[in-house]
Amino acid sequence: MNEMQVAEYLTSRRIWVEEALEKALATASQNMPSGTGVERLLAAIRYSLMAGGKRLRPLLFLAALESLGGKTEEETKSYLSFAAGIEMLHTYSLIHDDLPAMDDDDMRRGQPSCHKQFDEGTAILAGDALLTHCFCCLLASPGKPELLRQAARYFAWQAGLGGMVSGQALDLAAEGQKLSLAALRNIHMAKTGALLAAAVVTGGILAGVDEEERVILELFGYQFGMAFQITDDILDVTGDAAKLGKPTGSDITNGKVTYVSLMGLNGALQEADAATCQAMKTLEPLGDAGELLRGIAAYCLKRDC
Amino acid sequence: MNEMQVAEYLTSRRIWVEEALEKALATASQNMPSGTGVERLLAAIRYSLMAGGKRLRPLLFLAALESLGGKTEEETKSYLSFAAGIEMLHTYSLIHDDLPAMDDDDMRRGQPSCHKQFDEGTAILAGDALLTHCFCCLLASPGKPELLRQAARYFAWQAGLGGMVSGQALDLAAEGQKLSLAALRNIHMAKTGALLAAAVVTGGILAGVDEEERVILELFGYQFGMAFQITDDILDVTGDAAKLGKPTGSDITNGKVTYVSLMGLNGALQEADAATCQAMKTLEPLGDAGELLRGIAAYCLKRDC
Repeated sequence: MNEMQVAEYLTSRRIWVEEALEKALATASQNMPSGTGVERLLAAIRYSLMAGGKRLRPLLFLAALESLGGKTEEETKSYLSFAAGIEMLHTYSLIHDDLPAMDDDDMRRGQPSCHKQFDEGTAILAGDALLTHCFCCLLASPGKPELLRQAARYFAWQAGLGGMVSGQALDLAAEGQKLSLAALRNIHMAKTGALLAAAVVTGGILAGVDEEERVILELFGYQFGMAFQITDDILDVTGDAAKLGKPTGSDITNGKVTYVSLMGLNGALQEADAATCQAMKTLEPLGDAGELLRGIAAYCLKRDC
Repeated sequence: MNEMQVAEYLTSRRIWVEEALEKALATASQNMPSGTGVERLLAAIRYSLMAGGKRLRPLLFLAALESLGGKTEEETKSYLSFAAGIEMLHTYSLIHDDLPAMDDDDMRRGQPSCHKQFDEGTAILAGDALLTHCFCCLLASPGKPELLRQAARYFAWQAGLGGMVSGQALDLAAEGQKLSLAALRNIHMAKTGALLAAAVVTGGILAGVDEEERVILELFGYQFGMAFQITDDILDVTGDAAKLGKPTGSDITNGKVTYVSLMGLNGALQEADAATCQAMKTLEPLGDAGELLRGIAAYCLKRDC
């Protein structure tokens, strides 16, 4: 699969994800309690959820589902509720991470962060609502109920104590500390890797993969996550603020330990490349079924936002 | 079922719930990423989760499951993971409600609230972790996967956009406003009623009840929630601060609209009584199977904390 084919795949599926998110919001809003407080909550959710993210996590989910499940496009589309749930969870994590008591970021995706545009209380609630509604969406998906149970349970573990929330707790405790490369990796495996792995693995579970394939997908997810995070750190130095939707150089300004600060720019570039190669190699036992995910990994290394 | 039998049932099941919560924490902590940040997160979770709540929501779940499912005690015990998940979700809601940007409460259950004992960032994360881990616990439960899917999905809706989070948003917007009785009811139906209904209904779903019985359990849950909330408002005026674990009179001090402020103390007492009677009447079509839940409703009306 060449770069253009990967780009075309991602563009077409991204449209599906945007539609699924719109549909999920529309359905929910028809059945919610009424009142101005709820309208404000919904506005904050929409503001953050529809701010034009890359939708990488639901795209990875769909890529794994389609590559390994032998499903038609129509069948795949019926799983979009699960994909939308994954993106809701990612969006909640951004809203809460930006809060003053956390990373205290004023900008996100080229616009004021949720608590700046609304207020702190509303931002906390919008995050809580997205996190909770994620599970509504995951569990509204078709598929064998036992596979759905396994997928949603694994996802909750990776998003919570087993991964992302614990990673954020490690990150919070590391603020202002000197970190070794191993400690930095430990944080990013949990904070970024766990959810990317969850996206790929849940796609695999719903595609009906066996235990061996699950292990491969999980390893790929973590290695891809590592490459993704190093690229993030690099873009904070070399990227274009307009494309990124946030000011560059903020890691240096905030005295944050990153792959670039620990390894230098060239070292980080080499490390991102190595992690990507490793991730692609991990997929080899899957043969042709790993082609799309390999293509996405290679494509993401070259991203500029 | 007389009052003493109800009290004995609740005491014995509360011990089960406490054990299930301890077990869930122990299992999770064995598999989490390591680091001081994670230790602090776990300490905050334990601090709030094991602070001696009434465990009313998991108890309602167990009561519905046992009354309607014809299960042995051993079979019921296998569902304790679900019960523990319900309590985790309730605890997260208390932690986030207490935050400065929300209700800004310094005390909870006789001890400093989570953000006071730890810090705001840790409290936000502890809430996020409990909310996420709730779904791990729900989905670790036995039972037919399709019933589990339905129960967990309904629970997510009631805890999120369909109920509790929306209720909190209504409450936030109502701050400092004059409220009609209808508006106050609307808030409490969502903020308190939805989760109590979810506890009863999910117990029913896993017990295998039919659609008609689900509707009865849901209505009971909301009516019980109403009685429960009115009693809460009454106890803020007439209660014993030591037993409640928080100062009384705080609603008046904060200028909060309550059933007591709208209806007077006697009016509120009558209303709580009426809501309890209504809730008990709702269960009539269930016959003997509704006895335990009826007993719990009557018991809760007389609570002093």
